[in-house]
Amino acid sequence: MSSAFDFDADSPPAVREAIRSRAYRGFTNVVARRHVQGNLMIVPAAHADDFAAYCALNPQALPVLGRSEPGSPHIPALGADLDLRTDVGGYMVFRDGELSATQREIGALWRDDLVAFVLGCSFSFEGVLQRHGVRLRHIDEGNVSAMYVTNIPTRPAGPFGGPLVVSMRALRAADAIRAIVVSQHYPMFHGQPIHLGTPSLIGIDDLSRSYGGHGLTRLHDDELPVFWACGATAQLAAHQARLPLCITHYKAHMVVTDLPVDGLVDS
Amino acid sequence: MSSAFDFDADSPPAVREAIRSRAYRGFTNVVARRHVQGNLMIVPAAHADDFAAYCALNPQALPVLGRSEPGSPHIPALGADLDLRTDVGGYMVFRDGELSATQREIGALWRDDLVAFVLGCSFSFEGVLQRHGVRLRHIDEGNVSAMYVTNIPTRPAGPFGGPLVVSMRALRAADAIRAIVVSQHYPMFHGQPIHLGTPSLIGIDDLSRSYGGHGLTRLHDDELPVFWACGATAQLAAHQARLPLCITHYKAHMVVTDLPVDGLVDS
Repeated sequence: MSSAFDFDADSPPAVREAIRSRAYRGFTNVVARRHVQGNLMIVPAAHADDFAAYCALNPQALPVLGRSEPGSPHIPALGADLDLRTDVGGYMVFRDGELSATQREIGALWRDDLVAFVLGCSFSFEGVLQRHGVRLRHIDEGNVSAMYVTNIPTRPAGPFGGPLVVSMRALRAADAIRAIVVSQHYPMFHGQPIHLGTPSLIGIDDLSRSYGGHGLTRLHDDELPVFWACGATAQLAAHQARLPLCITHYKAHMVVTDLPVDGLVDS
Repeated sequence: MSSAFDFDADSPPAVREAIRSRAYRGFTNVVARRHVQGNLMIVPAAHADDFAAYCALNPQALPVLGRSEPGSPHIPALGADLDLRTDVGGYMVFRDGELSATQREIGALWRDDLVAFVLGCSFSFEGVLQRHGVRLRHIDEGNVSAMYVTNIPTRPAGPFGGPLVVSMRALRAADAIRAIVVSQHYPMFHGQPIHLGTPSLIGIDDLSRSYGGHGLTRLHDDELPVFWACGATAQLAAHQARLPLCITHYKAHMVVTDLPVDGLVDS
């Protein structure tokens, strides 16, 4: 797989350098596949403890991999050289809950009261699933998994709350069974699915209308939709909380960390 | 649960005594629920090694819990007092592959060249599933799980072969996920499911037409059909092998053993 890239796509520092230098602009679900990737959520320090509490109350959607010190764009435990102002392929900037900009780096916006959180992401276990023989058609097709807003409420904390967001993978039955067995061992990447089969039972009326409008949404006749809790739950919560400022990664451009996926297995 | 019986329904010897004395004539899926139950297959010694090989080639359907010495109706490892001529609630006698009789005991048929096999049964893990919070509606309704013949071939040995038979449980999605996670730890009771969702993908065209005509076959709108490999695969194979004589348990009347279910967990 790495041969398709002109940098070492298996190396997290090399991937981050390629993103930072804009040599790589693609989705991160096809690079650094043996290392943990995460959702980025940056909030003002005044809201950081509430956000941490919200994550703790909803750990299947929002497993916290790391949190920066106030004012620091670094989380050394996730990567010695990691700079969260430049090392993500795209950022969304929300002001008062509304998307105000998408941009390639956020150095000019950084403030000494910002706190960054990195949350577990299902991209981390997709490589694991494939190594267990699970076919992920969205990856074969160069796509990403689709996300949906459910009717399942999260447990609120402070201004944060709202519905659970899920990611969906189209899997054949035998692969769905295998994926359930494997993913339960990775609670830091959302663990086992929260639903499979009929989408309307969790408030999804139309699979073709995904959250954000991207991802594989059309099932083959021999596939089931399988739904995992998703870190995008945090984005929706931050939107609804109408924080004065909130910065997240842009869809499918995740924080690439140095943590080996196999180091977070819960056997 | 035991209070519904006039014997100690949690005790395998008491259950066997109640069956032997004909005090209990019900399905065994509601008694001795913390102990292993098994399918019974009795064949002439001339066919025993072929049958053992067939089981070994298809371990998910046919996990061997015990095998008697030729001529012996006892398998002491499964129960000191176990007498396979009298301790099963009903027997089916096949001659040249055709059902020739169903009867309550088989003492008069016993021969010194018969070999008895006891094979793992999904009844053993139903109690485990319920203790993990999985709702099994067929049990709530006083029914048993339905069985179906699939289009999935088994691996043949000697005269034994034919399609895989499965048991089906109607489960809500969250329970299906939980059941997959739990049942994988019990390979001696068929392990994880082999399919879920669309029945036609494994050759089942009509859920209402179950193998043997019994069991819960109607799904609610919020339920998925979940399919496990089933020991009845052996009955169908013996039928197709047209053995001169073959004796099995009668549907849902299983061999009740002294083995604790939790002793066969594979964590």
